[in-house]
Amino acid sequence: MSGTGGREIEQLIQLLARLPGLGPRSARRAVLHLIKRKDGLMVPLAAALDRAVETVVECATCGNVDTSSPCSICTDPRRAESGMLIVVEDVADLWALERAGVGAVRYHVLGGVLSPLDGIGPEDLTIDQLIARASEFSEIVLAVNATVEGQTTAHFITDQLAKLDLKVTRLAHGVPVGGELDYLDEGTLSQALKARTSL
Amino acid sequence: MSGTGGREIEQLIQLLARLPGLGPRSARRAVLHLIKRKDGLMVPLAAALDRAVETVVECATCGNVDTSSPCSICTDPRRAESGMLIVVEDVADLWALERAGVGAVRYHVLGGVLSPLDGIGPEDLTIDQLIARASEFSEIVLAVNATVEGQTTAHFITDQLAKLDLKVTRLAHGVPVGGELDYLDEGTLSQALKARTSL
Repeated sequence: MSGTGGREIEQLIQLLARLPGLGPRSARRAVLHLIKRKDGLMVPLAAALDRAVETVVECATCGNVDTSSPCSICTDPRRAESGMLIVVEDVADLWALERAGVGAVRYHVLGGVLSPLDGIGPEDLTIDQLIARASEFSEIVLAVNATVEGQTTAHFITDQLAKLDLKVTRLAHGVPVGGELDYLDEGTLSQALKARTSL
Repeated sequence: MSGTGGREIEQLIQLLARLPGLGPRSARRAVLHLIKRKDGLMVPLAAALDRAVETVVECATCGNVDTSSPCSICTDPRRAESGMLIVVEDVADLWALERAGVGAVRYHVLGGVLSPLDGIGPEDLTIDQLIARASEFSEIVLAVNATVEGQTTAHFITDQLAKLDLKVTRLAHGVPVGGELDYLDEGTLSQALKARTSL
């Protein structure tokens, strides 16, 4: 593309366009936004990226991303007390649970779900590492997504954990808080009715 | 937010969330995407941003952004031949015209449009600079947006340019290529009919 401010700008656009949620058009808008706010946004963002490149590592214990390995969650002694280990597919799920304030728990990031069609088997996930550390905990909560692959993965892990004497649970299915029944699928509604609680 | 990987990651999320088109949720997704693709995407992006911070400047002549001032468009001798200067609101519009391949022309970036309600007057735009350089050209094309503010700005500039003996034009209004009449507003349709061309 000629005239769009040289190779440096073009390269920045192409790299930003590879972020999820940004296409070529929004990447161009983002780059112009950055250039217009050089001191206020572009310089701090460049510095933040440089620092993240230097400092961010994956936790060898749980798979979380942090500036140390083991991460701040794995090394926080208060988080050992509950004895609860929450197994998630992805770091994004770990962050979502932390934002929800689920309490002083620890996590294990699987790094995906079993998917024979995509050639993803148990050895591609951190299931062996999970089995190895599971006995440190009293309860394993399988907080995988409520998809077919997620549930298959949960079943596989439950089988693997059966030999250890552990409480294995999963998240409740039901009506999302603030959700309208009218818009819910039948599967969720029938699960919510089965798992009804007394008032 | 606790547990989401330390201050470095949190800061990166907050800065990315300030880009147009990205909110807190998509910024978190983008940061995880970057961390997972450290060598392939995060390191090159950090380097590209550092280079852009160092090299990108605004062209003192036309307002384009480039790695030199005057920019590569203003210094390209082939672009002098047409004698055409296209006046745009924003660098994004300049890029859009360049992508459309409008030919060997030069540009003038106004940096916005007149908007009394927002307190934006002629002195906030590069109108004086435009008048100063306009006589170097034989035709000034006012390629401002077809909004009320854009058209007000075009009228103001036309008045200012009247004393110079120059051809002043604007972009044609009409049916967008590939557009369906059914979805067009009445203003565009009546303009398109008025400006009909013979086959």
